[in-house]
Amino acid sequence: MCLMPHTFSYQHLYNFTNSIFTAMGCKPDDAAIATTVLLSADLRGIDSHGVARLTGYVRLWEAKRVNATPSIKIVHETPSTAVVDGGAGLGLVVAPFAMQVAIDKAKNVGTGWVSVRNSNHFGIAGYHAMMALPHDMIGIAMTNASALVAPTFSIERMLGTNPIAVAIPAGTQPAFVADFATTTASNGKLEILQRKNADTPNGWVQDSKGNESTDANELKKGGALLPLGGDRERGSHKGYALGSIVDIFSAVLSGASYGPWVPPFPAYVPMPENMPGAGLGHFFGAMRIDAFRPAADFKEHMDNWITRFRNAKPASETNGVLIPGDPEREMEAHRMANGIPLVDSVVTELKTIAEKFGLDI
Amino acid sequence: MCLMPHTFSYQHLYNFTNSIFTAMGCKPDDAAIATTVLLSADLRGIDSHGVARLTGYVRLWEAKRVNATPSIKIVHETPSTAVVDGGAGLGLVVAPFAMQVAIDKAKNVGTGWVSVRNSNHFGIAGYHAMMALPHDMIGIAMTNASALVAPTFSIERMLGTNPIAVAIPAGTQPAFVADFATTTASNGKLEILQRKNADTPNGWVQDSKGNESTDANELKKGGALLPLGGDRERGSHKGYALGSIVDIFSAVLSGASYGPWVPPFPAYVPMPENMPGAGLGHFFGAMRIDAFRPAADFKEHMDNWITRFRNAKPASETNGVLIPGDPEREMEAHRMANGIPLVDSVVTELKTIAEKFGLDI
Repeated sequence: MCLMPHTFSYQHLYNFTNSIFTAMGCKPDDAAIATTVLLSADLRGIDSHGVARLTGYVRLWEAKRVNATPSIKIVHETPSTAVVDGGAGLGLVVAPFAMQVAIDKAKNVGTGWVSVRNSNHFGIAGYHAMMALPHDMIGIAMTNASALVAPTFSIERMLGTNPIAVAIPAGTQPAFVADFATTTASNGKLEILQRKNADTPNGWVQDSKGNESTDANELKKGGALLPLGGDRERGSHKGYALGSIVDIFSAVLSGASYGPWVPPFPAYVPMPENMPGAGLGHFFGAMRIDAFRPAADFKEHMDNWITRFRNAKPASETNGVLIPGDPEREMEAHRMANGIPLVDSVVTELKTIAEKFGLDI
Repeated sequence: MCLMPHTFSYQHLYNFTNSIFTAMGCKPDDAAIATTVLLSADLRGIDSHGVARLTGYVRLWEAKRVNATPSIKIVHETPSTAVVDGGAGLGLVVAPFAMQVAIDKAKNVGTGWVSVRNSNHFGIAGYHAMMALPHDMIGIAMTNASALVAPTFSIERMLGTNPIAVAIPAGTQPAFVADFATTTASNGKLEILQRKNADTPNGWVQDSKGNESTDANELKKGGALLPLGGDRERGSHKGYALGSIVDIFSAVLSGASYGPWVPPFPAYVPMPENMPGAGLGHFFGAMRIDAFRPAADFKEHMDNWITRFRNAKPASETNGVLIPGDPEREMEAHRMANGIPLVDSVVTELKTIAEKFGLDI
């Protein structure tokens, strides 16, 4: 048995993933955008959110928690805002629809802000935020997720890793693209340590009683991920506030489910009882640069900002300051040229769903 | 000499502060709002941003870096956005003007977003965000500040503590009000430890070479505050990204100065050379709740959110989960009733400026 990761070309994985979404019954345009969004995670090196999740999406569809042919609708709007109902569709399809609504509103009145209910997991937040860039807009994307995170002073899982992405255009420099979980570490990073049987650094997880822990398997034992900051002395109340803001903007504004009632990603986990809203929630924003100042002026100053930060005095034994988005952009170029490596367990899962639909990987 | 803190009634400090701003030449309305904003910090327990800074504002005015009678103007706008030039006025006056512009735009088109240039320090971000609450709007406020923070992998101070405040209305529950520096700890908390000659926890500061440190005086020795997260393993790149987003929204969008070029608060520190913009920058947002869903529905769910989080299982030896804004609201009620304690050094400084203007404290 080969222990090296299997490497697939982007085009190969694209065709395979597209065929799975098509086999689920997605319309051609929906299958194409879902595939593009999902694989943007693999390209950018966020392996936990890419094809490794494809089996999970299929299971949600089998459990009738995802509708492959959703009716996605604007249910309320003003010139600069909208609420979108995702019709229980794939978040991978609902989110680009909603982000496009935000972009269209920004074209008209300067900015657009869209809160989404009745959706599902939407892949990486960064993809949706980056949709704004070609329009000379700043893009913002966030989502709630099922509860894995204990607020400061609690032992109960109340929030998801609730990521925030902000994409900001520049001129000759590449865009600034921040995309991060509001926890010390994402669940994906924890899963990597679980596979290696390695400990976590301090500040990532706590045990079921709220004690410090470095056990990467703590979540399976009733423990919790920690908000960015780790503990109260190091500002975990700020990470908790950030995760809460994402939850409220994504779900309380739209009518999605929130806090401990967010639907779980694994289809075998029962749905929460007494859900206060419909499905997962997302929140998107688009701000036209020239609604503030001429885009050329802004981009010149963004180039200056980026260059100055890149040239900040480096700490010893480091390569110096990175601009948010640098590592992911380099990974994307590398993987587009050299292929996407998948670990054995993911390949095995993909083979299983391929067989289910009479397909090949 | 009395070592107990001196305690003053809110009204007494209000009258005194108002008389100082008036003596600087502020118009009556401007002196009143500057006083209200400044003292909101003392009331809410954020002592570093209240009357402790009054002497600093006077010195900036003496150094002609603050204009007591500024011309504050909208210089560019769309239906949902504006850029405000603060005319080098007190941020305490400029910020409420700009936040009101955001609120007015939200009344018209659902949301309003205002970036501000040519301003100065604006007190606590939370005050401005909370201006949205009586209008059934969510309020957002942020500002850049002079550079004290080293980005991940750097030993150079490139960012201020760049706070973010978000105020969200509820129904029968008090509003959710988050207001936090995007660093592990604010500079104000560091100053408290300096006065006590106490060490900091890990993750607050690094020394001039980028090594871990717990020396509360590290900033005076060329060290730096650390972004929220503390170090790379615990997500400092996320705190660095957040601080950067605040800087860009506040200054690159508006034409204020940014990064290491933000004007210093102490008037004796020379202005940075080759400043790329005018003064400090701020960014404000207002979102009308009913631009998304009926305000009554939203508030009912916010009450449910808040109640559920307050009742999350507490960690042992804690009083359980706090909702952002809880401690500050309780402090405000307490200090409004019992007075505001000021440490000796602040009282001495206030006496000095009182004498300068022929006033009494």
